[in-house]
Amino acid sequence: MRSLVIHAPLDLRIESSAVADPGAGQVKVKLGAGGICGSDLHYFRNGGFGTVRLKEPMILGHEVAGTVVAIGPGVTRVQVGERIAINPNMACGRCRYCVEGHPNQCLDVRYYGSAMRFPHVQGAFREEMIIDESQAYRVAPGTSAAEAAFAEPFSVALHAVSQAGPLLAKRVLVTGCGPIGCLAIVAARLAGAGEIVATDISAQALATAARVGADRVLDVSADPQALQAFTADKGYFDVTIECSGNPRGLLDGIAVTRPKGTLVMVGLGGEVALPAMLVVTKEITLRGAFRAAHEFGWAVDLISNRRVNLSPLLTASFPIEQAAQAFELAGDRSRAMKVQFSFGDSATSPA
Amino acid sequence: MRSLVIHAPLDLRIESSAVADPGAGQVKVKLGAGGICGSDLHYFRNGGFGTVRLKEPMILGHEVAGTVVAIGPGVTRVQVGERIAINPNMACGRCRYCVEGHPNQCLDVRYYGSAMRFPHVQGAFREEMIIDESQAYRVAPGTSAAEAAFAEPFSVALHAVSQAGPLLAKRVLVTGCGPIGCLAIVAARLAGAGEIVATDISAQALATAARVGADRVLDVSADPQALQAFTADKGYFDVTIECSGNPRGLLDGIAVTRPKGTLVMVGLGGEVALPAMLVVTKEITLRGAFRAAHEFGWAVDLISNRRVNLSPLLTASFPIEQAAQAFELAGDRSRAMKVQFSFGDSATSPA
Amino acid sequence: MRSLVIHAPLDLRIESSAVADPGAGQVKVKLGAGGICGSDLHYFRNGGFGTVRLKEPMILGHEVAGTVVAIGPGVTRVQVGERIAINPNMACGRCRYCVEGHPNQCLDVRYYGSAMRFPHVQGAFREEMIIDESQAYRVAPGTSAAEAAFAEPFSVALHAVSQAGPLLAKRVLVTGCGPIGCLAIVAARLAGAGEIVATDISAQALATAARVGADRVLDVSADPQALQAFTADKGYFDVTIECSGNPRGLLDGIAVTRPKGTLVMVGLGGEVALPAMLVVTKEITLRGAFRAAHEFGWAVDLISNRRVNLSPLLTASFPIEQAAQAFELAGDRSRAMKVQFSFGDSATSPA
Amino acid sequence: MRSLVIHAPLDLRIESSAVADPGAGQVKVKLGAGGICGSDLHYFRNGGFGTVRLKEPMILGHEVAGTVVAIGPGVTRVQVGERIAINPNMACGRCRYCVEGHPNQCLDVRYYGSAMRFPHVQGAFREEMIIDESQAYRVAPGTSAAEAAFAEPFSVALHAVSQAGPLLAKRVLVTGCGPIGCLAIVAARLAGAGEIVATDISAQALATAARVGADRVLDVSADPQALQAFTADKGYFDVTIECSGNPRGLLDGIAVTRPKGTLVMVGLGGEVALPAMLVVTKEITLRGAFRAAHEFGWAVDLISNRRVNLSPLLTASFPIEQAAQAFELAGDRSRAMKVQFSFGDSATSPA
Repeated sequence: MRSLVIHAPLDLRIESSAVADPGAGQVKVKLGAGGICGSDLHYFRNGGFGTVRLKEPMILGHEVAGTVVAIGPGVTRVQVGERIAINPNMACGRCRYCVEGHPNQCLDVRYYGSAMRFPHVQGAFREEMIIDESQAYRVAPGTSAAEAAFAEPFSVALHAVSQAGPLLAKRVLVTGCGPIGCLAIVAARLAGAGEIVATDISAQALATAARVGADRVLDVSADPQALQAFTADKGYFDVTIECSGNPRGLLDGIAVTRPKGTLVMVGLGGEVALPAMLVVTKEITLRGAFRAAHEFGWAVDLISNRRVNLSPLLTASFPIEQAAQAFELAGDRSRAMKVQFSFGDSATSPA
Repeated sequence: MRSLVIHAPLDLRIESSAVADPGAGQVKVKLGAGGICGSDLHYFRNGGFGTVRLKEPMILGHEVAGTVVAIGPGVTRVQVGERIAINPNMACGRCRYCVEGHPNQCLDVRYYGSAMRFPHVQGAFREEMIIDESQAYRVAPGTSAAEAAFAEPFSVALHAVSQAGPLLAKRVLVTGCGPIGCLAIVAARLAGAGEIVATDISAQALATAARVGADRVLDVSADPQALQAFTADKGYFDVTIECSGNPRGLLDGIAVTRPKGTLVMVGLGGEVALPAMLVVTKEITLRGAFRAAHEFGWAVDLISNRRVNLSPLLTASFPIEQAAQAFELAGDRSRAMKVQFSFGDSATSPA
Repeated sequence: MRSLVIHAPLDLRIESSAVADPGAGQVKVKLGAGGICGSDLHYFRNGGFGTVRLKEPMILGHEVAGTVVAIGPGVTRVQVGERIAINPNMACGRCRYCVEGHPNQCLDVRYYGSAMRFPHVQGAFREEMIIDESQAYRVAPGTSAAEAAFAEPFSVALHAVSQAGPLLAKRVLVTGCGPIGCLAIVAARLAGAGEIVATDISAQALATAARVGADRVLDVSADPQALQAFTADKGYFDVTIECSGNPRGLLDGIAVTRPKGTLVMVGLGGEVALPAMLVVTKEITLRGAFRAAHEFGWAVDLISNRRVNLSPLLTASFPIEQAAQAFELAGDRSRAMKVQFSFGDSATSPA
Repeated sequence: MRSLVIHAPLDLRIESSAVADPGAGQVKVKLGAGGICGSDLHYFRNGGFGTVRLKEPMILGHEVAGTVVAIGPGVTRVQVGERIAINPNMACGRCRYCVEGHPNQCLDVRYYGSAMRFPHVQGAFREEMIIDESQAYRVAPGTSAAEAAFAEPFSVALHAVSQAGPLLAKRVLVTGCGPIGCLAIVAARLAGAGEIVATDISAQALATAARVGADRVLDVSADPQALQAFTADKGYFDVTIECSGNPRGLLDGIAVTRPKGTLVMVGLGGEVALPAMLVVTKEITLRGAFRAAHEFGWAVDLISNRRVNLSPLLTASFPIEQAAQAFELAGDRSRAMKVQFSFGDSATSPA
């Protein structure tokens, strides 16, 4: 079994190891597809982000899907031969946040391909792996591994959108049209948003945003005043989903979100000079959104039932032998949206 | 009729004018008491705050109570002789925010003693005035004008606490123990908070905070690490009410508010370097609270029914002839909490 | 100007009268289309419902749209020549419910074609009428009067769905597939429901339900056990929208709504033997939905922007001369869904 | 070790058995006090309720507190010698309801002294027992076992009140003033209710209701029209907590709850002829409340911190030898509110 291991910035290696048989309650999976996430890119380029730093070799990847090839004793949730999306969030099930229904806030969480803990939690860019039965979410027959591997990032977008409350008939702004921003547009459209405006500084990203559901896209690099008209009467948008992680996205959002409106912060960035006075006087709600909880199941169902079509977001797929190329493309916003690896289980081609 | 008019920073004058008879739907009030608010202090010291600047002489004051001395045709809400608290928020009743139930976000609001509009909206530090019937809230017999004049600031605290959702059994932090902070402590206690911790940099303010209901008070000036223990497990408090307007209050609050918790921003300050990463990963809700809506009626009822005792918050009362002294005391946090003016209608002394 | 007046059960008459010019803030409308609602049918067949009874002749109708033919002084919201949907809910704007943002609960509401008050509020099945500017909602060019006349019933469905909270990815049951039930299916689909099941006792109604978005339709007349499978594990549906007004719909809904789920009651019916024990132990939320509030504007926007296609719901359109025929058809669930009258302004045919 | 076992209606026996040592994660408790609940009374008098019937001998009781006398390997939550309240709700921790934070809706729950499952779950009226560490909630030193045994019923009242949303300054009606009704009054008062009115048909119960916080008590047996005045303007109360389980309580509540208000159903009764029209047109929210979730911890903290004083609710305490007497008193509403058993660990007398 081969896996994609990062040793240091720009130092990716393919390494081989054996995979054990699944124990009680465990499932053995042959991986089919795995998407490169922004955090994977951070490890690749910089060896981490913020205080999270690589301290030992780590297999990357957490957006993965595959096929069940063996099940351990007692497993009832899936059967051999079924295609599944894999939930990378392994919560403890016992801490106060788990007990309250927030596994994404688990105090002892293990998350694939994350250097937050030491030893690091090894990731899922590999040909085969053992998972816990509870991580396995069956997709409908006919769903490709490439589609199923969107379950994780789509769950993040669904969670972000859920943090905003009902969107039916609401005016929504999405700032930042990378993969999460575009998936947030899909989710907001699905949730019945009346109007969706999206901003970015890349024409390519905005084109994709328009393709997946934005009513109007604004290039805030080309026209820094593009949002000015939306500040009238204290703000136009009921809800802003900030997906850029850039201070500009948050500041723009606060300026154009209407009084009593909500701004969900999904993008991860550094410090921002918050105009506290505006937040107070307009009584805006700023709310963080981190990973996903039960929305993982939602994402799997919505992809399976073809309520959403995420294929416009897949730019290209590479074998792990071409990892450097894949990461290079994934990091180039002028050319790429989502880039995936394809592993052995890729019989069904991307829709 | 005499009133207290500000012409420029530190330039307060007592001026006389006539008061007309109340028209249809109007009420003539003989004022009894009026509290000095932080915004009054800003006008007195600096001629305004932020972009809000004195451009013409303006009567100060918006925390007032008095007695009805005449009513115009058609008035049914109050009768001559009744003591009332006066709601200083005159919303248009027609804009989208009024229609949605948020008069504090009215797009065409007029607010006593505010230089936000020009001509400025004249304030309520005067011996007599004409108000709209709908601004008059009758208090229970036996309620002093001094107590009734707490209705406005208390409504702001009730509104802030309401912005946090239910507080029953919750752990609450209040940062900043000026009048609004202390009233927020009263409101949080009333709402069933399980535990209330309060911070400030003034021992005097903290002593009052303890007197009105804080379980524990922390001087973050004397001990900058005082809140450190509350950061364990990603944060201790379910709810933080930020009343200081100081960046420190917000930053402390974000550090010690637990995942999925809420931080209400009441204090008005400038820009703050927001640790966006913490807000995102802990999924904290930051929500502004500005003035009050229907909570004005709540405040009047709770004061009238003696569900709360706000008298520990009244430091002193002055005739308007001693305005300079009153403002000086009001601005000295080591000696004062709330300072009021007393006008003619002060038969009943403060409880 | 001719109008359709009911004098007694089955006694409909076309009567003529003059229409004045619009006063200040008023708008004169040439009607284009008007849908027959269940309440119109009740007046037609039984002279009312419950304690609401015809006591004088009354113009029927409240689901109407037309074209502005004149505006009074001061009107800015619409212009002559624009097509509009007309909001039949005339709230007082001053009572506690109006002030809190609930005009559909106004204590002094006037509603077109309703015998709740005496004198009755005359309805809108007429060729021309004067309305208040605030009742006029402009639709997009190209929107037919027939489409615009769906604004009112669609707003009721949107309000019902809103009463359930966010529907994104939820499992939804709609009991009763008359016009409101079918519009609720449209609204639930729009709001992102993951799965929609609908029940009725009419194959015709169920066929329409499937056409407008139900994933699965169940004839509970043909198979009384059709919902049995959904009772497993205490209930399958996150949300039930009860639109039948039949006790069976409510009882079925309670049986198959999952613990902590919500059942919105829209259908108006009589007493129901409530299984209180189930509501308590499953902690179900039952919530009424009555008419609509700000959802009227949502309906207009969503119809205008073609986010929804309501044309499959329009069965037929009649001139008022054929009122008896129209009411007969409207009352026959085996043949009809929504039946409308067409008035003079019908240049644009239904989409 | 002796326990109180019911074999059939009115057939209570004291039986002896051995208690094992605590295993890993388990705690051995010497019981101190145990309150008789309505369900215990149903088993005693009728052998059950509804479809829940005694099919084998069962130890009664689930409102209990005691002292830790031994701990098994790995236990960290409590220490020997500490007094604890015992959570009788043993949820599976794995079903969808547990995972979503609703252990009271667990699909595989085990609850002390309940005949819902077979074999029945044995109860806690015994001198010693083994519990899971997670069921043990330490109370503050100085808290008597009698006080601690109120944790369970108080948690039910806190849960009921929480189901109503924020109560700050709200008008609250409590129908039914048995132990749960009176505890709901305590909880509503604690949550900041502005006004609390309570109804019952027992003067004794109403007297206690007034003592623990109701502003006004109404004997609806003596004066069936007592609530009539509260129906004006469609209803007076923001929130009704129905604790009687009597159809009258629910009907009264619907009549006097204001539009958009909430009625929490706690009392367990049979079918009620629901006036569906009123629920729909007033858009009332009816919501069940069953047992408690995280509110058990709240109850323990609030009792420990003396935020509430529940001692007026304790009528009498009996040794288990006088079980028949205890049950007889507990069932007599004209003489009793809460009746408890005292076991060995009763060093600290009731406060």
